[in-house]
Amino acid sequence: MKAKLVVAYDGTDFRGSAESAGTRTVMGELRAAMERVARVELELTGSGRTDAGVHGWGQVVSVDLPDDVDLDRLAHSLNRMLAPEIAVRSADWADDRFDARFSATSRSYRYEVWNDPVHDPLRARTAWHVPQPLDIEAMNEAAAHLLGEHDFASFCRRPKVGKGQPEKSLVRVLTRATWSRVGESPVLRFEIEASSFCHQMVRSIVGTLVDTGLGRRGPDEMPATLAALDRSSAGQVAPPHGLVFWRTGYDGPRWDQHPQRPQTLR
Amino acid sequence: MKAKLVVAYDGTDFRGSAESAGTRTVMGELRAAMERVARVELELTGSGRTDAGVHGWGQVVSVDLPDDVDLDRLAHSLNRMLAPEIAVRSADWADDRFDARFSATSRSYRYEVWNDPVHDPLRARTAWHVPQPLDIEAMNEAAAHLLGEHDFASFCRRPKVGKGQPEKSLVRVLTRATWSRVGESPVLRFEIEASSFCHQMVRSIVGTLVDTGLGRRGPDEMPATLAALDRSSAGQVAPPHGLVFWRTGYDGPRWDQHPQRPQTLR
Repeated sequence: MKAKLVVAYDGTDFRGSAESAGTRTVMGELRAAMERVARVELELTGSGRTDAGVHGWGQVVSVDLPDDVDLDRLAHSLNRMLAPEIAVRSADWADDRFDARFSATSRSYRYEVWNDPVHDPLRARTAWHVPQPLDIEAMNEAAAHLLGEHDFASFCRRPKVGKGQPEKSLVRVLTRATWSRVGESPVLRFEIEASSFCHQMVRSIVGTLVDTGLGRRGPDEMPATLAALDRSSAGQVAPPHGLVFWRTGYDGPRWDQHPQRPQTLR
Repeated sequence: MKAKLVVAYDGTDFRGSAESAGTRTVMGELRAAMERVARVELELTGSGRTDAGVHGWGQVVSVDLPDDVDLDRLAHSLNRMLAPEIAVRSADWADDRFDARFSATSRSYRYEVWNDPVHDPLRARTAWHVPQPLDIEAMNEAAAHLLGEHDFASFCRRPKVGKGQPEKSLVRVLTRATWSRVGESPVLRFEIEASSFCHQMVRSIVGTLVDTGLGRRGPDEMPATLAALDRSSAGQVAPPHGLVFWRTGYDGPRWDQHPQRPQTLR
């Protein structure tokens, strides 16, 4: 039967989330632990791939498990085996057609910046230290230009495609992109949500917005940056450790099957 | 001239704050870096000793420095050398009589508990994971009994004293001891302030209050625990990683010189 797990992790010491031979990854560790408990070979699907150093709070994993597995006990065993770096926040049976990746209708990420002249040792693993003051209004003005459906080629690492295969679309629908200050602290938090994200898209957007907040770019340059469809038109790529894969949504229509969507883009 | 530094640190990989030959400590690293910059031998005094694994946000350090040192540049250099684990939050000249330890009139600490069945990987270094639900009202009721002036022998590791020397007093004045929930999160935060603390006093109090929150002790047992003047009457000692030395105050009268204080206890 199909199971759905929600998984959190400190990405600092992993070479990303997706399995990759010979390296220590979140899904690799999780699968190895699950196979030790379930005593069968398993294949895991994650709702999103995160890079080395990126953290997870709402990574969803789908996996076919023997029917007699007790999910509460499984989650409990996994948490004992994988603490403190990885946590299974929940484990439930799902519809047989459920696929963590292809059933997902939205993904959201959070990025935190510690915006103070002096770094904070207790945030060294989870926030990007930007010492110069950031203009959060300019950053939000620039971010607003990203909302809606766009080809995000300027913010994506071009995916590898096999010879003779068609280019993969980098069109995505962005439904949220907002900076806010956390309380009265020097923490600036960016929340971004989209149908899905292409590779390095969040970090490239964050870096470009931080450049805007530093006055290196004007907020009204963003439409031209988007239109260029060229990675060199964007700003710096923010470091991975400020980023958390926050939530995977399964509650709306899938964006590429949306009835309002023009046929040509499907 | 006398300088006053406010220092923050992630205590995870230090054997405590106070210098100790042959081990890696916060003050040892800080002094080594300061001596490299100032090119003279220095003697540092901290406002409080923290144990291995305990973090700092408001550790104050006093040190005699050559008059021609530029404190802003010194702090900047130190932050480049000591990041990400240690941060010099500020550096100012102080009155020549200023002593980080003996001029201090209050110390406050924060302790965070992650009170949820599942651990949080991103709080693994900074919060104690207590999976069973805690009764925060009972914990606050028990904590209130600690306020005021008491002999805290039940919560202190007996300090070593030389042969024929008098026992050191474990009388302290507690001015704050409150648990609160952070937002709607599973984080329970304890804030405690006193004239000063004896060794392991905060962690011993936190552990005893968590035992109370778990129903292992009644909140009204606290007066008897205090009166026992015996460490075995207290509960467990909370782990170090949830604890942050939050602030050192220099704003009130020193408790042992307070005009209202009975002469016999001075």
